[in-house]
Amino acid sequence: MSANAPQICKTILAGTIAKGLQAEVNDGLSKLDKKPHLLGILANDDPAAQVYADWTGKTAKDNGFEYTLKTVGKDDVEETIIAANHESSVDGIIVYYPIFNNRQDQYLQQIVDISKDVEGLSHQYIFNMYQNIRFLDDHQMQKSILPCTPLAVIKILEYLHIYNNILPYGNRLFGRTICVVNRSEVVGRPLAALLANDGACVYSVDVTGVQQFTRGEGIRKRKHEVVEKDGWSVEDCAPLCDVVITGVPGDKYKFPNRLLKDGAVCINFSSEKNFTPEVKERASIYVPAIGKVTIVILLRNLLRIVQNKRNAPSALHADLPNGSS
Amino acid sequence: MSANAPQICKTILAGTIAKGLQAEVNDGLSKLDKKPHLLGILANDDPAAQVYADWTGKTAKDNGFEYTLKTVGKDDVEETIIAANHESSVDGIIVYYPIFNNRQDQYLQQIVDISKDVEGLSHQYIFNMYQNIRFLDDHQMQKSILPCTPLAVIKILEYLHIYNNILPYGNRLFGRTICVVNRSEVVGRPLAALLANDGACVYSVDVTGVQQFTRGEGIRKRKHEVVEKDGWSVEDCAPLCDVVITGVPGDKYKFPNRLLKDGAVCINFSSEKNFTPEVKERASIYVPAIGKVTIVILLRNLLRIVQNKRNAPSALHADLPNGSS
Repeated sequence: MSANAPQICKTILAGTIAKGLQAEVNDGLSKLDKKPHLLGILANDDPAAQVYADWTGKTAKDNGFEYTLKTVGKDDVEETIIAANHESSVDGIIVYYPIFNNRQDQYLQQIVDISKDVEGLSHQYIFNMYQNIRFLDDHQMQKSILPCTPLAVIKILEYLHIYNNILPYGNRLFGRTICVVNRSEVVGRPLAALLANDGACVYSVDVTGVQQFTRGEGIRKRKHEVVEKDGWSVEDCAPLCDVVITGVPGDKYKFPNRLLKDGAVCINFSSEKNFTPEVKERASIYVPAIGKVTIVILLRNLLRIVQNKRNAPSALHADLPNGSS
Repeated sequence: MSANAPQICKTILAGTIAKGLQAEVNDGLSKLDKKPHLLGILANDDPAAQVYADWTGKTAKDNGFEYTLKTVGKDDVEETIIAANHESSVDGIIVYYPIFNNRQDQYLQQIVDISKDVEGLSHQYIFNMYQNIRFLDDHQMQKSILPCTPLAVIKILEYLHIYNNILPYGNRLFGRTICVVNRSEVVGRPLAALLANDGACVYSVDVTGVQQFTRGEGIRKRKHEVVEKDGWSVEDCAPLCDVVITGVPGDKYKFPNRLLKDGAVCINFSSEKNFTPEVKERASIYVPAIGKVTIVILLRNLLRIVQNKRNAPSALHADLPNGSS
């Protein structure tokens, strides 16, 4: 059957989705009087990290941003970040992790000044994300920054019209059931929270079991709550889902195709292919990788940070002759 | 709970949805050199039928169509239709049913010339609808006409983004599960078929039981097939559905709110309210009535019929000096 069946499934590449976001970033950039400057800090011997750093640099420059890469030893990272925090010519900082590959990396993440944190890893940003607080200030002028990979997935879901813009902003996933296979602190758990905060019923799956993230019945709660689904596995929740998002590291894991609801939307954010080619026999839409969207989101975050600086109360004051508001 | 719960549900009125369709009709109309002429035939003492005839006439005239109403006795309807078929100044014919309120009404429906049948009740149109044949001709110049009420529901689902225009035309409901409560030959069954032909999994419910309409696994079939769901009731299928569409006549029937999936989209095409006000506690979108859309669809069908006449091979030939194609 699989060999000859006509393929109804639409495969959509990240590059296609990235284009619209790039146009949005370029438009925002055209309204600034100087190029935002991104500083990369690399303290990692892994050639793959070097490649990723080069790739960020190239994309940044191609899109009209300034980019500098500092290569330093592990023990100099902390001081390099502190210096960059104080360097007024630097608008955003990206540190290429892992460095120590332990909790010291999380310590370093909190060293980056929140006003230069393009990766959205500062505790305040993470707290706002989980709490469904979308602005940094009471006047809603400065948007909180979201971590790049989860936000990339959200932008992909918007592109695919899984977000229904007939519904009010903040509730546009109401009625959608979504499975996220991966519950890492870096991507899977924040992603599940973001989707539930937007109104979805999310099943978050990892080796320890299944958790359900929702805003409660009729999405009446302001932010998501988490319920442990005792005894459930991916077998129980995946067949209920309109969208299945996978992010399992390594090339061993393959999502069992038979668990997909007919016409499900499948998105893989792992660097390995978590779906087999047969996914196309059941899915309506398949997005095999998301990297190209993630990197544009990084630049979008940098732009946001520069815009936030302009919208900050002190900046607004500075624009006024008497400093009054 | 129900009294004080904040309402997340968005109620959308048919008048709002009709506006966009009206604009589309007006645009098509502006490209014609004369006003299309709709003839109404009324042979019904019921004051409600007179009101409906008046309402059609007003909407037609307000939107730039010509409208004439002929009031005749039951036994003159057949001859009146035949005369209208031959009257070149008449572009479309609408007969206000019921007249005999038995199979003779179906006989009369087949008397209307297919080229003037704005209600889409001619056997050829009905056959094309069930067979998922979208054009009258091999060159795909003349679109087949769909019955007004089922098409109105489809246009509402497009407006609500239940049709996903990221997917190819003809497959835009792939992944959607829809419940239609009513399986009349006039609306419920054609609607279930149309939705399944567009890729949905449809549960068609009436007092006799539940039928499932789909294009098979992976929507590989060209048109829908029907499977009897033995032992199933609305209790089994409604909780699986993203969209619930009701059309039960009379004021006794109320759809049981507890069967709705959280965030379902609810549409009622009955002249009575089939949902209780509590629907808003669970639904994401609620469309309480569709009449205003249906009447614009009638005008859209009239426009289509006039466009079909212009696109007919004979008309194309007539435009060419040598009658060659």
